[in-house]
Amino acid sequence: MTILPTDVAATIDRALREFLAGQRERMLAIAPELGELVAVAGEFLTGGKRLRPAFAYWGWRGAGGAGDGPHLRSLATAVGSLELLHASALIHDDVMDSSDSRRGRPAAHRRFGALHREGGWSGSTDSFGAAAAIILGDLCLTWSVEMLRGCGLPPEAIQRGHAIVDLMCTEVMAGQYLDVLEQARGTQSVDAALRVARYKTAAYTVERPLHLGAELAGATPELLAAFTGYGTAIGEAYQLRDDMLGVFGDPAHTGKPAGDDLREGKRTALVALAAQRSAPEAVARLWRLFGDPQLTPDGVALLQALIRDSGAPEVVEAMIAERVEAGVAALGGAPVEPAAAAALRDLAIAATARPR
Amino acid sequence: MTILPTDVAATIDRALREFLAGQRERMLAIAPELGELVAVAGEFLTGGKRLRPAFAYWGWRGAGGAGDGPHLRSLATAVGSLELLHASALIHDDVMDSSDSRRGRPAAHRRFGALHREGGWSGSTDSFGAAAAIILGDLCLTWSVEMLRGCGLPPEAIQRGHAIVDLMCTEVMAGQYLDVLEQARGTQSVDAALRVARYKTAAYTVERPLHLGAELAGATPELLAAFTGYGTAIGEAYQLRDDMLGVFGDPAHTGKPAGDDLREGKRTALVALAAQRSAPEAVARLWRLFGDPQLTPDGVALLQALIRDSGAPEVVEAMIAERVEAGVAALGGAPVEPAAAAALRDLAIAATARPR
Repeated sequence: MTILPTDVAATIDRALREFLAGQRERMLAIAPELGELVAVAGEFLTGGKRLRPAFAYWGWRGAGGAGDGPHLRSLATAVGSLELLHASALIHDDVMDSSDSRRGRPAAHRRFGALHREGGWSGSTDSFGAAAAIILGDLCLTWSVEMLRGCGLPPEAIQRGHAIVDLMCTEVMAGQYLDVLEQARGTQSVDAALRVARYKTAAYTVERPLHLGAELAGATPELLAAFTGYGTAIGEAYQLRDDMLGVFGDPAHTGKPAGDDLREGKRTALVALAAQRSAPEAVARLWRLFGDPQLTPDGVALLQALIRDSGAPEVVEAMIAERVEAGVAALGGAPVEPAAAAALRDLAIAATARPR
Repeated sequence: MTILPTDVAATIDRALREFLAGQRERMLAIAPELGELVAVAGEFLTGGKRLRPAFAYWGWRGAGGAGDGPHLRSLATAVGSLELLHASALIHDDVMDSSDSRRGRPAAHRRFGALHREGGWSGSTDSFGAAAAIILGDLCLTWSVEMLRGCGLPPEAIQRGHAIVDLMCTEVMAGQYLDVLEQARGTQSVDAALRVARYKTAAYTVERPLHLGAELAGATPELLAAFTGYGTAIGEAYQLRDDMLGVFGDPAHTGKPAGDDLREGKRTALVALAAQRSAPEAVARLWRLFGDPQLTPDGVALLQALIRDSGAPEVVEAMIAERVEAGVAALGGAPVEPAAAAALRDLAIAATARPR
């Protein structure tokens, strides 16, 4: 999906490349071995969908920020910093979940594990991989703040931007913890899953990026409130679509093995609904298979059938449609620049649509 | 050791308590379960030596900053933020090393693991503990930046402070990675150990905190250079003392089980020197025992004897004394306020002295 004007996307890419090149220089001045950390960070910064920078860009435009001119490079740097934050979240997330792959490539801790194995080094390969990935995630987190700080917009604008990002970091980490907690507790509630989605996804992916862009341009409280309405609804819809893809998605599209969420035992609204809507014996079979790391392809197919037969996917599709409608409606009466409002309508659909 | 004036120490404590209370409120508004994260963070913020805030405070005083008056609360907030950064580093460090305890109490990941066990939750206790600790370390890292940003000093001062902290974060994480790397490679070189100490300890604990305080007050390049001379030397001496304590220290003083560094196989200058200075058969025995997680108290005693008999401890003591002298000398001709110069001389000795 095209979610950013081509020149803006290219400027964001360039800003990220140049920022990373600066960090690479700083790292190599300390020790040549540190080049590896920057290389893995660089891989995480290429090939993403740039969803958070896109919402931030349209937040800026929505608040009346210019789509071209002298501020564009600074703006691209500011919104591009969200990709570093996201790289940090993904790298740490994969350590926490022991995920092997990300976007069809080895997860960061596996990359470092391979380095350990190839070097014939001592100690545990997994421990080395995890330690290096924790450090790299920490680096990306501090670098994201540094990149925003140095973006070149007026200091008051940056200050307002940081206040949003501070909030966003606390929220996404709170959401992460709740996610891990609900998983451990074996929660089977749609509400609990939606609470996690509210902070881990909606605030982090849609609402706060919009607020960041809007605050950088100097937004009114009315606009921020409209973006909250839009962001919460569209963000939840995005998570619900992701839940569907995690169970039924095509590995070629998701970059993850089929049924990964089922093996991992991810507590989603989809699964909670399936359990609610199934007969006792189907529920028993569902929980017996769900979360088994050794689940075979046949087991995945069986679980998919159980979930499909419960009717939960239709309910989730309806929830998605409802939220997309509510999100778009939230922009209706709000003082959003027309070009941005149109783009956000398109984005709402593109980010939550079934893959073709 | 008394390293800060009592009123300053109390103001730093208060600033940290109040900042955390604000975060607690923000977290509880999301979900009551998040109180646990803030509680564990709070434990990490009490009982530390406040070494980094102390160096930052004396850096400020050294550059002519006032020791009392209206700026004191703001300054305490700024330098106190380093304790949150340090909490983040310790929490993640303990996950990476699988350490059970910190300052005589359970490590953060063990605390969360206990929560998992007591709740009778599903999945792996260790994985839950590690995931929660990774998230909490991330939170403390972003909170430290937020605390500095909101300290209330003039914006230009804060801006200069952030530039130092950015550098400091990159350096400490680089040092952490090199540490993990040297460990895995089984490096036996004094130079490699000192390179790790330069970034992981000297820059992070002494040099950059001094620079932070100095930059907040508006320092000259001469003063910053003198602090680099002092900080590098004293920081290395501090690490060398820590290496000695890790092998010979009293658990009641270090808060870690006796011989913990030996079981962990920590590659220090002390151990590298011992290997260099021992006869081949002693070296063989040393490497056979070193890094064995199951090392018995007898094994610890044997390793201690091997290291002692090599004469390495005397060499390390001489290296410490040399660095303390060089560090103090670096302040000699520099434009440091006399009260701060005197305090930094005392601190150099207090931070690197043998425990009594």
